Amino acid sequence: MARFRIEVNYRKGVENPEAVTVLRNLKILGFEDVTDVHVSRIFELDIKGSREVAEKTAREISERILSNPVIQEYRILG
Amino acid sequence: MARFRIEVNYRKGVENPEAVTVLRNLKILGFEDVTDVHVSRIFELDIKGSREVAEKTAREISERILSNPVIQEYRILG
Repeated sequence: MARFRIEVNYRKGVENPEAVTVLRNLKILGFEDVTDVHVSRIFELDIKGSREVAEKTAREISERILSNPVIQEYRILG
Repeated sequence: MARFRIEVNYRKGVENPEAVTVLRNLKILGFEDVTDVHVSRIFELDIKGSREVAEKTAREISERILSNPVIQEYRILG
């Protein structure tokens, strides 16, 4: 069994609606000192089999399921 | 200006609906070798002012806005 930690972020220049909403709400709630917000997701996948085959599966899942390659990018942290 | 990286996770024993959905869909799509999925969120906040005051603000935001303390926990990664 292998575990993969995968971070998914919006690409540079693409607006992340969740981050925009958090920042706007912080301003409304009076947290005026917050100047910027980023939000990303971490997925941890446990995959059966050899590390090599499991990593291929992790990459396929990251590209096809966990991220939208048009607007997001992923990196496998380990 | 200080930057804080905050990870928000569901508490042990509390079901994360996003992780449950991802795992179910992976099975449906034929990724039978995936045995478990965890999902967490990373927030990055840029906050004006001294590190000390900014950290207090980051903690307040983490507890009140970014997480639901009943079912989630946060940790400031740095």
